[in-house]
Amino acid sequence: MKIAVFGTGVVGQIISEKLENLDHEVTIGTRNVEEALSRSGKDNFGRPGFGEWHSNHPKVKVATYAVAAAGGDLIVNATNGTGTMPALEQAGSKNLAGKVMIDISNPLDFSKGFPPSLFICNTDSLGEQIQRAYPELKVVKSLNTMNAYIMVNPAVLPEDHTVFMNGNDAGAKDEVRELLKSFGWREKNIIDMGDITTARGTEQLLPIWVRLYGSLKNPMFNFKIVMGAIPG
Amino acid sequence: MKIAVFGTGVVGQIISEKLENLDHEVTIGTRNVEEALSRSGKDNFGRPGFGEWHSNHPKVKVATYAVAAAGGDLIVNATNGTGTMPALEQAGSKNLAGKVMIDISNPLDFSKGFPPSLFICNTDSLGEQIQRAYPELKVVKSLNTMNAYIMVNPAVLPEDHTVFMNGNDAGAKDEVRELLKSFGWREKNIIDMGDITTARGTEQLLPIWVRLYGSLKNPMFNFKIVMGAIPG
Repeated sequence: MKIAVFGTGVVGQIISEKLENLDHEVTIGTRNVEEALSRSGKDNFGRPGFGEWHSNHPKVKVATYAVAAAGGDLIVNATNGTGTMPALEQAGSKNLAGKVMIDISNPLDFSKGFPPSLFICNTDSLGEQIQRAYPELKVVKSLNTMNAYIMVNPAVLPEDHTVFMNGNDAGAKDEVRELLKSFGWREKNIIDMGDITTARGTEQLLPIWVRLYGSLKNPMFNFKIVMGAIPG
Repeated sequence: MKIAVFGTGVVGQIISEKLENLDHEVTIGTRNVEEALSRSGKDNFGRPGFGEWHSNHPKVKVATYAVAAAGGDLIVNATNGTGTMPALEQAGSKNLAGKVMIDISNPLDFSKGFPPSLFICNTDSLGEQIQRAYPELKVVKSLNTMNAYIMVNPAVLPEDHTVFMNGNDAGAKDEVRELLKSFGWREKNIIDMGDITTARGTEQLLPIWVRLYGSLKNPMFNFKIVMGAIPG
């Protein structure tokens, strides 16, 4: 499949590597291709800059958001939350119309340091904002509640754990479910929570995620929903 | 131990039953004792009204918040989020000073129906508001992220799952940990997240809790933190 991945950060890189390994044709979308490819040195996570990363992944194309979106059958939004709406504006509504988007972004506000707060929450969500702004885009919020290494390799954790989906379009969620399964997710661990308003719930997992990261001193964890029998 | 349980609703009832079974001396605190004991008929959960419940649990005392707090070595706050601050005001700061409080309340706003939003979140929490208003009270937020039947009987779910603690006082958290263990919680499933500001994280689990309840059609579930090895 032709897949556009928005975002050159750690999440965009790891998702693109996985999609490349699964033989998809990946184009990373970014604001300024030349600037992105010129980045060297280590990032905040100790990973190589995007330019070095790309030299190790030459099959992955890099293009503007608009070009990447226009050529993609499916779009993965792996931008920072603050960069999401500007990126989609640059992509352009006609290049987004009719496409399925897996939205991994989180509305994290780091302006006061760590732990971040959310710049949208409670009565709205970033997933909903995207869906409202681009009604012909089929937004499926997913994968945003865990570290990127776990997203693409759930077996890295020693037992079953959960990934959520939120979105209005059943067919789009089916498509995302198949992609998640190709990443290694077992169908029983994928929970469809309902329409895109349920993204308020998954985005509000981030405040506990960042604090657990602080107390556990380890980003390699995920939430599992453990279910019991219905009473009565 | 002499334990005051604030709140006559389903959480207060179930916690009180468990504490009674564990041979604690339980006094339920409420605004108006006579009114509470006169409640008959079923509540929204199909449970008997408080008066009928109490006639089946005559060893549990019922008193005003102030009397219950004054006589308690430990206090469990099982009031509705909207009722929490008024209840503590009626309890009175001198009756709360120096006590440990397990705070199970959640700042749920049902004014627009189901699912509720939060009336405090993101940059503050109800746990912190209580701690700020009563600095001599040792607030430990815990148990607020699951159904009451699971709180007092974690083995009702078929595998391990997690309970969180948030609070400033290490000794108070030790005391709460022991009480949780007496409820059946295994020590490895109790995560101390840090100071009371981390209650922002646990209270913000409620938006996903209520939506999972909506999609799973079953309140008998809980979150488990599944951990992997620290990378590198």
